[in-house]
Amino acid sequence: MNGRKITCAERAQLAMMLEVCAFPKPGNVDRCHDYPETRLEHFLASTILARPALERAEKGDGSVGELILDAVESTNIHSGGNTHFGAYILLIPLLLGRDIPGACRIVAETTVEDAVLFYEAFGKTRVRVLTNDELDVNDPGAVEELRKRQMTLYDVMLYSARNDMVAREWINGFTLTRRGADLLHSYGGGGCGAVMGTFLELLSTEPDTFIIKKHGQDVAWEVMKKAREVRDGVRDIVRFDQECIDKRINPGSIADIIIASLYIALGEGWAWDS
Amino acid sequence: MNGRKITCAERAQLAMMLEVCAFPKPGNVDRCHDYPETRLEHFLASTILARPALERAEKGDGSVGELILDAVESTNIHSGGNTHFGAYILLIPLLLGRDIPGACRIVAETTVEDAVLFYEAFGKTRVRVLTNDELDVNDPGAVEELRKRQMTLYDVMLYSARNDMVAREWINGFTLTRRGADLLHSYGGGGCGAVMGTFLELLSTEPDTFIIKKHGQDVAWEVMKKAREVRDGVRDIVRFDQECIDKRINPGSIADIIIASLYIALGEGWAWDS
Repeated sequence: MNGRKITCAERAQLAMMLEVCAFPKPGNVDRCHDYPETRLEHFLASTILARPALERAEKGDGSVGELILDAVESTNIHSGGNTHFGAYILLIPLLLGRDIPGACRIVAETTVEDAVLFYEAFGKTRVRVLTNDELDVNDPGAVEELRKRQMTLYDVMLYSARNDMVAREWINGFTLTRRGADLLHSYGGGGCGAVMGTFLELLSTEPDTFIIKKHGQDVAWEVMKKAREVRDGVRDIVRFDQECIDKRINPGSIADIIIASLYIALGEGWAWDS
Repeated sequence: MNGRKITCAERAQLAMMLEVCAFPKPGNVDRCHDYPETRLEHFLASTILARPALERAEKGDGSVGELILDAVESTNIHSGGNTHFGAYILLIPLLLGRDIPGACRIVAETTVEDAVLFYEAFGKTRVRVLTNDELDVNDPGAVEELRKRQMTLYDVMLYSARNDMVAREWINGFTLTRRGADLLHSYGGGGCGAVMGTFLELLSTEPDTFIIKKHGQDVAWEVMKKAREVRDGVRDIVRFDQECIDKRINPGSIADIIIASLYIALGEGWAWDS
């Protein structure tokens, strides 16, 4: 080993890589599990291809909206669909702001133009959204509505926070990101065990809003209850994982938050390979 | 998907990622297997961290020796030891030269200074080398010897070719790199199956020189024979893989060549995610 310091963009990439490799993560793509249309290699390809956008964010070269759009456009060149949209929503402000307090300032200062670009980015992913929504990203009229109401990207996140735990991070000072980083630090060393333990702890205590959007509240709370049983040693994680995968129940929002937590923890000296 | 073209550096990174994820690769780190001191995450961290050196090579910003040293120094900041030294020896000329004929010109034009820098890079890895060698990289006198004999890096590879199939690629026009790329193309689509099939075909027909250095000729030929039986369907790959791992028999040089093959095939339109 020598003394080269990793850059913030590389740290974000390491966070993306460590998250997806950790296993077994109930319901999500991990080292041991693919979905037919989205495989481990797709997540890792995005991790590689996101670098230019992450580097721009590290340099402060662009607005939040521009950089989220850049990250999506840089990475959606494979056939695996959306892999990291939620992660970019957290990583871009964290890179621009250097740390959580800085990211809070960045998100508070977002503009209507950021919101418009964000909708453009969203439209280029295949992320599931709630319908019957006047700000539905699949509705071309939504951008007009944004401009009419003069909604900034922060306002959009405030609007979405009720149904989306990633958006909620913007509103509540990156609470779960911070909690995940603290959990990572609480493990003696790094490695897959720490990432898995952190994932399981968040899954045991937060209903994942990506699951809610796909399968409804009841399923999300049921997953939380079962995750708690796994954590407490009374349910087998491998069988629970398989059950989630069979039903296509994937806690994707908690995965996004874990990536942000890993990014923060790595910056605070958490040794991933100790 | 949109039309962004991936860069050559990204293509090299994708090659590194696809190689290590493919499984089960008898004896090597893969999606399903770690060695205690070198894990999948170490290979993927190197894949991320190699980018600046690969980008310099893409731009022609540096000599072969400088860029191999840069790649080693950029990636040996984790605790997983050497992961891709052999791959850099192939990727750097391929990036500088654009294709195999270009790489052949690049390696032919290397200098004594390239050789000196290469030895510096080698010294920063923990790659196994043959002892009783007057050009042993662990011997501080070796660089003096290089200068005295006016050996270019090409001369060093010619000297090493007898015992090292990666060095041999420099001498014989990247023969196995080309063969691996052709094998990849021969599969209907991309994906793990094509990488695995290509790996197994090379392993069935070439004694791996990394195995020879660690375990001797007999073991390498035995591995080749068993790989052939796996290929022909008369030996179980999972058990063979476990046998190799238990004995720490890892065909690391063929893995390096597969990375170069993937790099070439991707550039020729092989669709990794089809």
